[in-house]
Amino acid sequence: MTLFERIVAREIPSQIVHETEDFIAIRDIAPQAPTHVLVIPKKPVVRLAEAAAADEALLGKLMLGAAEVARKLGLERNGYRLVVNNGRDAGEAVPHLHLHVLGGRAMTWPPG
Amino acid sequence: MTLFERIVAREIPSQIVHETEDFIAIRDIAPQAPTHVLVIPKKPVVRLAEAAAADEALLGKLMLGAAEVARKLGLERNGYRLVVNNGRDAGEAVPHLHLHVLGGRAMTWPPG
Repeated sequence: MTLFERIVAREIPSQIVHETEDFIAIRDIAPQAPTHVLVIPKKPVVRLAEAAAADEALLGKLMLGAAEVARKLGLERNGYRLVVNNGRDAGEAVPHLHLHVLGGRAMTWPPG
Repeated sequence: MTLFERIVAREIPSQIVHETEDFIAIRDIAPQAPTHVLVIPKKPVVRLAEAAAADEALLGKLMLGAAEVARKLGLERNGYRLVVNNGRDAGEAVPHLHLHVLGGRAMTWPPG
């Protein structure tokens, strides 16, 4: 079981900011912006590259969910960045798909 | 019409790397990594925050499309980062939803 599966199962505590049937949104424990949240599907998709065609709706829900969480946390007015790290070069840290939502400060370019 | 609508309509040239019924993938004209591609829906969704519930499938297709483009361009083995800039703080440059796919080098953290 990945760390995120254990968080979804409430075996490991986390700061949950939003939850639906399909995903959980929690505060990142090492935030890189004033607001930094992870949107994590309950289904343990390993990473974006491992998502199947059948995951299309789930992926759409995660994107809409990220926007919903951003709205809920007051990020919509000034903006926010969505980031998905896939594999080694991206610094993927947990082999369970998750979308980073970062806001509350001006983000710079390049994105890392 | 946004710049991206004009690119989709072939009114403005671009380096197209992939195309489906739903999106076009082009090289970014100011690449921030050895491979830097934009996945752009043909439907002019303004930004993620403006996506409607009815766009769920489209958003899923864009995520799967980004993974497909990364595979096609040889990024899957070492990895890649997906970035969506929503609004001012994120540095959103064109008011037409697009997903950045960056790879070919180690990406750093924070993501901008």
